[in-house]
Amino acid sequence: MSGAATGRGGGAEIVNIKAERLLSDLEALAAVGDTGDGGNCRLALTDDDAGGRELVVGWMRALGLDVRIDRIGNVVATRAGTDDGLDAVMTGSHIDTVRTGGRYDGTLGVLAGLEVVRALDDAGVRTRRPLALAFFTDEEGSRFAPDMLGSLVYAGGMPLEDALDVVGIDGAVLGDELERIGWAGDAAVPGPAPHAYVELHIEQGPLLEEKGITIGAVTGVQGISWQELTLTGQSNHAGTTPMRLRRDAGYVAAEVATFVRRLAHDLGGHQVGTVGRLDLHPDLVNVVAARATLTVDLRNTDDAVLAESESRVRQHTADVAAAEHVEARWRRLARFEPVAFDPDVVDLVERTAEMRGHSVLRLPSGAGHDAQMLARLCPTGMVFVPSRAGISHNPAEFTEPEHLAAGTQVLADVLVELAS
Amino acid sequence: MSGAATGRGGGAEIVNIKAERLLSDLEALAAVGDTGDGGNCRLALTDDDAGGRELVVGWMRALGLDVRIDRIGNVVATRAGTDDGLDAVMTGSHIDTVRTGGRYDGTLGVLAGLEVVRALDDAGVRTRRPLALAFFTDEEGSRFAPDMLGSLVYAGGMPLEDALDVVGIDGAVLGDELERIGWAGDAAVPGPAPHAYVELHIEQGPLLEEKGITIGAVTGVQGISWQELTLTGQSNHAGTTPMRLRRDAGYVAAEVATFVRRLAHDLGGHQVGTVGRLDLHPDLVNVVAARATLTVDLRNTDDAVLAESESRVRQHTADVAAAEHVEARWRRLARFEPVAFDPDVVDLVERTAEMRGHSVLRLPSGAGHDAQMLARLCPTGMVFVPSRAGISHNPAEFTEPEHLAAGTQVLADVLVELAS
Repeated sequence: MSGAATGRGGGAEIVNIKAERLLSDLEALAAVGDTGDGGNCRLALTDDDAGGRELVVGWMRALGLDVRIDRIGNVVATRAGTDDGLDAVMTGSHIDTVRTGGRYDGTLGVLAGLEVVRALDDAGVRTRRPLALAFFTDEEGSRFAPDMLGSLVYAGGMPLEDALDVVGIDGAVLGDELERIGWAGDAAVPGPAPHAYVELHIEQGPLLEEKGITIGAVTGVQGISWQELTLTGQSNHAGTTPMRLRRDAGYVAAEVATFVRRLAHDLGGHQVGTVGRLDLHPDLVNVVAARATLTVDLRNTDDAVLAESESRVRQHTADVAAAEHVEARWRRLARFEPVAFDPDVVDLVERTAEMRGHSVLRLPSGAGHDAQMLARLCPTGMVFVPSRAGISHNPAEFTEPEHLAAGTQVLADVLVELAS
Repeated sequence: MSGAATGRGGGAEIVNIKAERLLSDLEALAAVGDTGDGGNCRLALTDDDAGGRELVVGWMRALGLDVRIDRIGNVVATRAGTDDGLDAVMTGSHIDTVRTGGRYDGTLGVLAGLEVVRALDDAGVRTRRPLALAFFTDEEGSRFAPDMLGSLVYAGGMPLEDALDVVGIDGAVLGDELERIGWAGDAAVPGPAPHAYVELHIEQGPLLEEKGITIGAVTGVQGISWQELTLTGQSNHAGTTPMRLRRDAGYVAAEVATFVRRLAHDLGGHQVGTVGRLDLHPDLVNVVAARATLTVDLRNTDDAVLAESESRVRQHTADVAAAEHVEARWRRLARFEPVAFDPDVVDLVERTAEMRGHSVLRLPSGAGHDAQMLARLCPTGMVFVPSRAGISHNPAEFTEPEHLAAGTQVLADVLVELAS
């Protein structure tokens, strides 16, 4: 029951997590906003989100953590260190979900943090630095855009007032909903910069599973560009209008979508491009579409290449639209630059996984995470565990219990090391 | 007040229509199901359709016509000839509309027929053959598929029982609705074969206007192929899923849509191709589409070329879908072979228009019309008048009054000639 965490390389074996407790917590949290098909719906600042918050904060308090809620509803629970004058080492993630979410996205990082605290308590270890466990408001952005809103405000990237004024897809105002569910705290934002931040998350992609690897040492987060394109042509009879006289918004939309695919192949590397939303109007079998609305999601780890991909999509769209006499109007929905995580933290994650005997792969994250916002404040890294078939944002989201345990153990070791 | 219509070439000047009466009737009918934006909504067998039927049948009876309603709700109003043992010469069209219909599509042909009857009465002309004015049930097919249903049943192309069992987009059963609005008559279907059938209709395309021509002598109707394609892939995260592992139903849909365009250009001539409906699921910016449903509308005046276009679309789809590991499932929604109108009737329309001093163009119809069903029974033709900007199925549908009058006069002359 004695002993502080030892220095670099020596602390890895001291603290051992227990998977059963983590699995039990995941089960209990999944019962809040259970969609009945294995999935979860806890859209940000809904009653179900509040239910999840109460459950998790109850667990935090039961472990004796000092829970603070800030003005955007982020929750930070701190376990004292031996030197509380030092900045805390932080871990965390989020507990809100998309509408058809799974059980692991976000929740794993938060509940793993709880398990790390319990394992520290079991081992009687008091780290030198305080350990902070956070969950951030509205990471998914499914109800209130942009995503990662809470951590963005925490990191000073968005004024509180702007965040509180955000109007959701259901017409609700974020600040009103935060008050309504009783989770508007009084801790200041931006929040204090941690000494370091490390987040455990499911990969949400297929690479680790495909390669049979247990732990991902995340090198950074791809830059993200979301744009909405509205094309306006002329509604016409599909039988009587010769091809040369058409102003077919649907045809231009299809040309843009196929170009996005070709572009991703041409640029190669980590470039991805997706047209996931495409709506035609009037959307009838025998009517040339007067209007098409589509989104273009482009991502790359290299900001210059990302910008080039944006520019090439816009140019190609302008060319095709002009030839078809269709008007093209762009609206930017989101743009985040690529984030490179701290090389020392990435190395530490990799080394720690190896020391625990796990296969490990360095890889960038294709999805956005709270960690990319915290990276503005302090050295940051992430630990990934495999997602079965790469499926996420879906009731079928699944990670093997042994992978959940492995990731949580690596997180524990890394946090102990950083807090020493 | 005497005189019968003279023989070929001599009857053209006897009967003169009056445009004001036609315009007044068009105005009155447009008030039934007025959508408030210049448009009309009289979906087949709705209360508004019934309202339109009562108005038009009232006018028919006021002119002393013998009105018969058949078991699918088609209305045939007959003006006696001097030799009622002969088959009637028929004209007509439909008065149902699409949901966002204009004032001229269908109604022109029916109300022009009324004006021809009035002009015959004015001139004291009794044709040798009876003259029949028909409007057919559910030409648009917007509520109950297929389109041209009433004339199809009249022509014996669809059993009455099958037609009565059709379920509409609103879940209503055609036969029930026909009874409910009180328009299930007792005249037998298939109906009697006319001596000839000639229908006046707006072009619904831009060709006459573009060339500055007043009258179209319609040579036939393009063959129509409507197919629905359902593509099933795998929903995945747009950021974390490498391009090579995607099964993107939306991408395959876009490839099919651009292929349809290229194919129309490659085949040239009268070939047209349209993807007017395209729905993605789940239709979200950051999710690779798991499912896409789209329609492919192909038309050609040459059935062999139409069949080739169908086959090439299916083959290309199979190739692209296989490469993307996406499942492609086709469903046929409609298939009508091209119809060639009777050469003598087409010549008569052309010659009559020239005799009245109008510019005339021989052209195929890109849209389907009741005339193509009547063509199964008797020599058939159509008269087209220009549509402003080719716009139809839209509140902005418009034809110049002088063109309405010109078309009605040509119709009158042609009917008189055929009935002589």
